[in-house]
Amino acid sequence: MTGERDRSDSFAIAGSGVYLPQRVVTARELDALTNRPEGSTAASFHLRERRWASPAETSSQMGAWAAEAALAEAGWDRASLDVILGACGVMEQPIPGTSVLIQRRLGLGDSGIPAFDINATCLSFLLALDHVLTGFSIGRWRRALIVSADIASAALDFSDPEASVLFGDGAAAFALEANGPHVRLAYRFNTYGEAADVCRLEAGGTRLRPDEDFDAFMAHSKFHMEGRGVFRATSRRFGGFLAGLLSTAGISPADLDVVIPHQASAAGLEHLKRAIPSGDEKVVDIFADIGNQIATSLPFAWHVARQRGLLHPGRHGLIIGTSAGVSLGGAVIRW
Amino acid sequence: MTGERDRSDSFAIAGSGVYLPQRVVTARELDALTNRPEGSTAASFHLRERRWASPAETSSQMGAWAAEAALAEAGWDRASLDVILGACGVMEQPIPGTSVLIQRRLGLGDSGIPAFDINATCLSFLLALDHVLTGFSIGRWRRALIVSADIASAALDFSDPEASVLFGDGAAAFALEANGPHVRLAYRFNTYGEAADVCRLEAGGTRLRPDEDFDAFMAHSKFHMEGRGVFRATSRRFGGFLAGLLSTAGISPADLDVVIPHQASAAGLEHLKRAIPSGDEKVVDIFADIGNQIATSLPFAWHVARQRGLLHPGRHGLIIGTSAGVSLGGAVIRW
Repeated sequence: MTGERDRSDSFAIAGSGVYLPQRVVTARELDALTNRPEGSTAASFHLRERRWASPAETSSQMGAWAAEAALAEAGWDRASLDVILGACGVMEQPIPGTSVLIQRRLGLGDSGIPAFDINATCLSFLLALDHVLTGFSIGRWRRALIVSADIASAALDFSDPEASVLFGDGAAAFALEANGPHVRLAYRFNTYGEAADVCRLEAGGTRLRPDEDFDAFMAHSKFHMEGRGVFRATSRRFGGFLAGLLSTAGISPADLDVVIPHQASAAGLEHLKRAIPSGDEKVVDIFADIGNQIATSLPFAWHVARQRGLLHPGRHGLIIGTSAGVSLGGAVIRW
Repeated sequence: MTGERDRSDSFAIAGSGVYLPQRVVTARELDALTNRPEGSTAASFHLRERRWASPAETSSQMGAWAAEAALAEAGWDRASLDVILGACGVMEQPIPGTSVLIQRRLGLGDSGIPAFDINATCLSFLLALDHVLTGFSIGRWRRALIVSADIASAALDFSDPEASVLFGDGAAAFALEANGPHVRLAYRFNTYGEAADVCRLEAGGTRLRPDEDFDAFMAHSKFHMEGRGVFRATSRRFGGFLAGLLSTAGISPADLDVVIPHQASAAGLEHLKRAIPSGDEKVVDIFADIGNQIATSLPFAWHVARQRGLLHPGRHGLIIGTSAGVSLGGAVIRW
């Protein structure tokens, strides 16, 4: 499994959009929330601020606003969409999925347009993109909408700064079209379930039930992360993973022009910058102001790269990240 | 969107397996739980018993046991799997996904085999099957494992018999291989988000939070279904949906030899039997003893059809169902 050479995964980005919640939470507020000295959050975690969703800014509402922006840029009749894919880290509610709620918010509730969700926590967007590109390559779909939306602030444990201040809320959406200038040269996704416990949110599924054992439910209702465990599970595999991906794409690390990573943490981004030649210039880093938005980080950073004019035709881009699981995922795209 | 003619979606079933929880709940016990006269559950809902999972029978554990059975029949070295897809209605926990937990339980935690989840509530298996067949058709994968596991009993509201006694727990898994005798002739999936509220489970995602409004959380922690709303949303679309699907497959309703449906309810199954010529003989109906297992029903009924010897070479099978969303989904397969 060193990756896969894609033969016909060409596509166009017809539009992209993001949504950030109104409420700004500063690093100083996070100092207070985590009960640490003033200035320590900014210094330790290299962040300025986070955005947190209000009750009115639900996952599907933020996702729909991001999707509206993407569709406005695309200029499409939205009824021409062939599929709406939800690619969230955690869904708004278990039944039905966020993609369905977004379909309804977009005024497409009577359209019949297929809406479903793909979940691989922080790499859900990468998997959804793969599903869409595969659908394009076999001629099934011509126009697809992928929406990521996450509210990490719904489940943060501030007694553990490392597992809480990293995260921010938001949404990002891409309107993609078949047969465009961009070509995915390689794709790779590997899961190592032996590290399933290093990033986990246990309450909210079929196992823990608030009416059976309320204390156990509440004790597991916050996101739990063992930073060292994540590092151990991913770092020893990262070099080989990246080498395999680039080899499949037929390029060397120096050929990469832009790197669009999941915004896991400042330390993770520094690691990546050192692994890529001229990484400081090439890696899109929005961690200080936006943070780790779970599945939304990847499309959000990609949208920022578009806005910054980094995706020139012919350039090589790397999309890469890790997710709870743990999984490593990436793609090489020629713009 | 009348469906899609698949050109090369051929596959083999190398193995399948199911798991049913040990605990049997009789119709009489359900009479008591729903506070109704003895015999009324059996009479009103045409059921004999249900199975409910114990705390040790988690979604991933039941899924792994079903997967073990499927892999045993396949006789594969499990390390040769190219992908493990989770296709549950509701996951065991939000992070990481059930597919990852199953990968670990299968002893594949260090394998790197991609594991992720697809969610379309009761039709998740149909979507996962589509993803696998597409991956087969482009040559990406040769061996895939799809696992559905659901614990409906985790969130039943017995004050509403119609939305509770229908459901049972369990798991089902299929080990599929590329380029086999079976050919998917047509596939169709349509979503109508305007009916998103008729089947819903609201607590367990990013919107409702037990530490912010405990009462609201608990008030929405049970599955809610408006049977009449489901019927209204699906019945008027079902005829056209089925006709489009069969037309794409190039067959007539009379050509169908076996129908493998989602086991939504006794009434839904009766409806289907009337819509298909000789439906009484052709529709696989396991509702009385197994019930609606959310996403697990479809592969469970498919496994039963295999065991009963219904999938003779050359026969035409219809896989069909509805899901919260609401969505209608189906496929025509030539065995």
